[in-house]
Amino acid sequence: MKQIKTVGVLTGGGDCPGLNAVIRSIVKAGNACGLTTLGIKNGFGGLVNNEWTQLTAQDVSGILPRGGTILGTTNRDNPFHFPVADHEYADLSARAVTNLQQRGVEALIVIGGDGSLRIADEFRQKYNLAVIAVPKTIDNDLPGTERTFGFDTAISIAMEALDRLHTTAESHHRVMILEVMGRYAGWIALHAGVAGGADCILLPEIPFRISSVINKVRERQQQEKMFSIAVVAEGARLTGGSPVVARIVDGSPDRIRLGGIGNQLAQAVEEEGRIETRCTVLGHLQRGGSPTAYDRILATRYGVAAVNAVQDGEFGCMMALKNNRIVRVPIEQVAGKPANIPLDDDLIRAARAIGVCFGD
Amino acid sequence: MKQIKTVGVLTGGGDCPGLNAVIRSIVKAGNACGLTTLGIKNGFGGLVNNEWTQLTAQDVSGILPRGGTILGTTNRDNPFHFPVADHEYADLSARAVTNLQQRGVEALIVIGGDGSLRIADEFRQKYNLAVIAVPKTIDNDLPGTERTFGFDTAISIAMEALDRLHTTAESHHRVMILEVMGRYAGWIALHAGVAGGADCILLPEIPFRISSVINKVRERQQQEKMFSIAVVAEGARLTGGSPVVARIVDGSPDRIRLGGIGNQLAQAVEEEGRIETRCTVLGHLQRGGSPTAYDRILATRYGVAAVNAVQDGEFGCMMALKNNRIVRVPIEQVAGKPANIPLDDDLIRAARAIGVCFGD
Amino acid sequence: MKQIKTVGVLTGGGDCPGLNAVIRSIVKAGNACGLTTLGIKNGFGGLVNNEWTQLTAQDVSGILPRGGTILGTTNRDNPFHFPVADHEYADLSARAVTNLQQRGVEALIVIGGDGSLRIADEFRQKYNLAVIAVPKTIDNDLPGTERTFGFDTAISIAMEALDRLHTTAESHHRVMILEVMGRYAGWIALHAGVAGGADCILLPEIPFRISSVINKVRERQQQEKMFSIAVVAEGARLTGGSPVVARIVDGSPDRIRLGGIGNQLAQAVEEEGRIETRCTVLGHLQRGGSPTAYDRILATRYGVAAVNAVQDGEFGCMMALKNNRIVRVPIEQVAGKPANIPLDDDLIRAARAIGVCFGD
Amino acid sequence: MKQIKTVGVLTGGGDCPGLNAVIRSIVKAGNACGLTTLGIKNGFGGLVNNEWTQLTAQDVSGILPRGGTILGTTNRDNPFHFPVADHEYADLSARAVTNLQQRGVEALIVIGGDGSLRIADEFRQKYNLAVIAVPKTIDNDLPGTERTFGFDTAISIAMEALDRLHTTAESHHRVMILEVMGRYAGWIALHAGVAGGADCILLPEIPFRISSVINKVRERQQQEKMFSIAVVAEGARLTGGSPVVARIVDGSPDRIRLGGIGNQLAQAVEEEGRIETRCTVLGHLQRGGSPTAYDRILATRYGVAAVNAVQDGEFGCMMALKNNRIVRVPIEQVAGKPANIPLDDDLIRAARAIGVCFGD
Repeated sequence: MKQIKTVGVLTGGGDCPGLNAVIRSIVKAGNACGLTTLGIKNGFGGLVNNEWTQLTAQDVSGILPRGGTILGTTNRDNPFHFPVADHEYADLSARAVTNLQQRGVEALIVIGGDGSLRIADEFRQKYNLAVIAVPKTIDNDLPGTERTFGFDTAISIAMEALDRLHTTAESHHRVMILEVMGRYAGWIALHAGVAGGADCILLPEIPFRISSVINKVRERQQQEKMFSIAVVAEGARLTGGSPVVARIVDGSPDRIRLGGIGNQLAQAVEEEGRIETRCTVLGHLQRGGSPTAYDRILATRYGVAAVNAVQDGEFGCMMALKNNRIVRVPIEQVAGKPANIPLDDDLIRAARAIGVCFGD
Repeated sequence: MKQIKTVGVLTGGGDCPGLNAVIRSIVKAGNACGLTTLGIKNGFGGLVNNEWTQLTAQDVSGILPRGGTILGTTNRDNPFHFPVADHEYADLSARAVTNLQQRGVEALIVIGGDGSLRIADEFRQKYNLAVIAVPKTIDNDLPGTERTFGFDTAISIAMEALDRLHTTAESHHRVMILEVMGRYAGWIALHAGVAGGADCILLPEIPFRISSVINKVRERQQQEKMFSIAVVAEGARLTGGSPVVARIVDGSPDRIRLGGIGNQLAQAVEEEGRIETRCTVLGHLQRGGSPTAYDRILATRYGVAAVNAVQDGEFGCMMALKNNRIVRVPIEQVAGKPANIPLDDDLIRAARAIGVCFGD
Repeated sequence: MKQIKTVGVLTGGGDCPGLNAVIRSIVKAGNACGLTTLGIKNGFGGLVNNEWTQLTAQDVSGILPRGGTILGTTNRDNPFHFPVADHEYADLSARAVTNLQQRGVEALIVIGGDGSLRIADEFRQKYNLAVIAVPKTIDNDLPGTERTFGFDTAISIAMEALDRLHTTAESHHRVMILEVMGRYAGWIALHAGVAGGADCILLPEIPFRISSVINKVRERQQQEKMFSIAVVAEGARLTGGSPVVARIVDGSPDRIRLGGIGNQLAQAVEEEGRIETRCTVLGHLQRGGSPTAYDRILATRYGVAAVNAVQDGEFGCMMALKNNRIVRVPIEQVAGKPANIPLDDDLIRAARAIGVCFGD
Repeated sequence: MKQIKTVGVLTGGGDCPGLNAVIRSIVKAGNACGLTTLGIKNGFGGLVNNEWTQLTAQDVSGILPRGGTILGTTNRDNPFHFPVADHEYADLSARAVTNLQQRGVEALIVIGGDGSLRIADEFRQKYNLAVIAVPKTIDNDLPGTERTFGFDTAISIAMEALDRLHTTAESHHRVMILEVMGRYAGWIALHAGVAGGADCILLPEIPFRISSVINKVRERQQQEKMFSIAVVAEGARLTGGSPVVARIVDGSPDRIRLGGIGNQLAQAVEEEGRIETRCTVLGHLQRGGSPTAYDRILATRYGVAAVNAVQDGEFGCMMALKNNRIVRVPIEQVAGKPANIPLDDDLIRAARAIGVCFGD
């Protein structure tokens, strides 16, 4: 097996706390074993456009605690379907491969989510490119790994938001709703909800009834707890699949208050439950800022594991956390298969045991 | 002058970090000089409904770091215009005064914002009630005082949000917009914007042009700073007074994305400036949670000052911070007169000096 | 199997973030299945002294985010060797058991560390008491479980401290040393060190040479990194077992600056390495304050699992985290057997791979 | 008046949150009015050694939230008494001035504390150097200004530490002592103590009795508050001026536990008061890390004001906060005159009013 001398690194998809920690770890571990690391800027778009940057020990000094990515990122720009003009796309993947070859890059480490994994896998299949993936998403919805980095930071931020809303809910005897990310999977809502002591947690995995939420609020009022907290994932849906908004508009289109599920839910609870209700949408605050200790450690481990895989000449794999160890799983087994929370998940059961309402 | 033996305390208006610190300070300072403090629950509504709670040293133990108010609050329920049925109101102020008298309460300390100040002043005028006010608003828009408690916490939270958005803006080469509170006055936007290094700060006090914002973004791009951060107060308005939404909807009502000024601005900047733009609405996160050191100290001082005023028998006044001392100003001079940022404010000038764009 | 109706709960040993979260979870899960929970105050001492408190849903409302324990704790007061006078002890364990019986307590949940586990096990052996343990220690040094709650919070606090020290080290071109807890096991030092980007991590498990630390500092200086950060567990020791202080005092007893390993190390590095060096001892700051999301979730799961064990009538076991599930391990297998970091631990290897010096 | 074209900037003395914010503000405000800013590295030492760095808009991008100083600093290296060999010093001030002239630097902005102010003033007197000072110290003990930047961050960190210690003190029924900085002035102890709800605050300005501290602890125990919190400035002293340690050692030198005032006090309270007592020394944690919103704003204003003074050609002055405005005070009036807390300080009086014990 020929020893690899130069590796390229790129970050793809949405911002995620810990990206810099992975980059730093790859560069430091690479340095220690004679591997040169080249940075590709702005995700797969930069690979097509030939945007490079050096990554020496000096370049990664001090970036461990910083959010974002020094390489830049984008959640567009698929080389196999690349925007070349307005509404016009072309396959520029060959150009991307040529760019790698001209720099002498023998392996490519992709730090990204599901979209990036799929592109990486296509490069592997079509060009036999030596790719290694590091799973990145604040949503924790990648299969094959127990945790993605960025998730712990996201739930920490959401929990702090719940702590703040708690004091206001209690002072005002209100229902406070926090809408968090999670279009298809409710990991953030579930974990943040338990950590923040939410009374209701609404997930894409469990269709909910507004009446269940209101019943929970009333049950608490009967126990002299005059306020309630709900966390709702942006992808949560009513039973039957009807959007919440339909319940609201009836006959009075001028009363439509558009917005995401959180705001719709707030309006419905306020009107049907006759209790003052407010919604906050956490939005981008979940994905920026300094990573938690947990995420910095996990990201560091992932980076070292990626370099180890390069040294072992094992490609086409994604680094994954399994039973507290970093293992390698084939990218093709995980790409394109988002991981939902199983309905018998331990934490869902624990939450139900302490009385959390899931709206069902 | 007859020495007062029993004082009532209530908190009114929106939640605000530091309310508990004021309550604790009043109870502790009162205890030390033989004053009994009775708590009225849920603001002026509780005064009408005769909801009382004792406030001993034990009751206020450990509440200093906690957000919210142990007394509960509400931003409705004016005794002079009290909701008695759906859409029906009555003047129940006499009942409120009777309730105070029956408990032997000789003076009332009102911790609240402009709405509470006006009610307190009406009690003073109509019933000669001995009232003392402590200025509370995260918006810092009360006249007569340099600072209200809660404001420092609000700008700290907004600054942390900006720090988070900063990393994402930089990684994605985006414009990130943060909408903060401030319907009539832009204190939070101004201070948070400077603390968070915003490139544009849009205030109710300074009507703005979208073209100014876009020019600032472009100016930065020419300096190789591919991202920008804007803070916008919810009450900011375009020059000419036209709402931003008007610029967006033209001819295509189905493209309306309703929402506050922040989301409207984001859409306008993205479409007219052709740069990816995202908005986050901070909302209730600004008013909950543990107060900062600054606010805890200020709140503690206000509470002591209120007790001192009771001891001095000086009523009808609001505690105010002036040149680092707590002074007393007549409530009638401040009630109903929200304080905007003067256009020659030192911080606006300093911000302009370092290149911040105010949209004008 | 007779269904248990009343359970007692106590917290023992040093303060630990998440204690309240476990208590809340036990009470809430107990309530839901008809179990009455009685609180014993101040650890095993309160069991001897018959100090009880009720634990209703109301009592545990709002305690999830709070550090400390509403039950009080102590790290003395073993009922089998109870202080009855100055330097005089007696076995009062029978009295403790009587106290439990008189209240109708059929099972005892002990939330504590190794000391508490041993006492619990002694009650089980001598009185056949139905005990269940929840593993608590910020040090993470209990066997049988992958994580104790409180540990994630401790490393988060230590990491934040390292982030602060980092800026000062860099500005002053200094070596900054942080001494963290860990008398026998270095889990906090290892994890906080990796999360905080420490250059040297000194553990009880790996005896160190001062020359190794100084060499690391010099290696960094040659790479133009004029500062270094070291984390040292309080139980770290020099190779050969000689205390650091011995190297310092020779011939000049008046120059002795006593103190823990951190201060001794600082003095040695400064004198032998001729580089300005400062030490901070984190101390009690590691064990107070609001728990992280991770710890709140883990603590909640432990509490539910303890109630489940009560319902299942399975006693003499400690709840443990194993491969992301909560399992039951016999207390006798874990009590009295502190868990060190194995030398081939994944994180030690990852840290070595990115160049961290362990002093060996 | 000739318009100045090039200004030098240095940071001197101990690390302080907000240094980077001042540097950024000077560079940005300077840029806007055509002023070139040159950075001098590592304080006055760098001025002697001719260490320069450019300071463009790009160099200061992103430094606002970062602790430390990108220029480096030192609290040694006085050009008028410069270390040239071991224990040997020379006056190299002329060389420093030559270095400035050779770079075309017409004015020098010194961001520093009392030591730096004195050096700046000596340059002004001996060389007629155009100097401007920005007051920096976490201790807030500079005269002429109401606030130095860095102070608000220091008290915020100390307050968070007190919040943590609070939970442990309460859980363990202990006295917890926090030793904070303040050798000659107790500003940090006073403000952090009030913000953190300390029961005792011991300042250099008010000599204390151990019996007063113990009496306060006992008074609280009688009110069923079984724990107490004390904040002690490192420079606090017993009445009569005798060091605390003298009370401890008597007759038993082997029992000496050396350490600062905090540890001595803890030992004395534990032994004489017979209550478990622990001390934490906050140390360097007070001066590192990201500045608070308050400090970032103040630092930004100071930087702009310094540039304004350069433009106005007014030198020999320090920027100062007075009644919420930034004014200029002659350096000679403030250098060498540390500012203690006046005994009739408003906050001392407010603290006494709520029952805080100052040990007198």
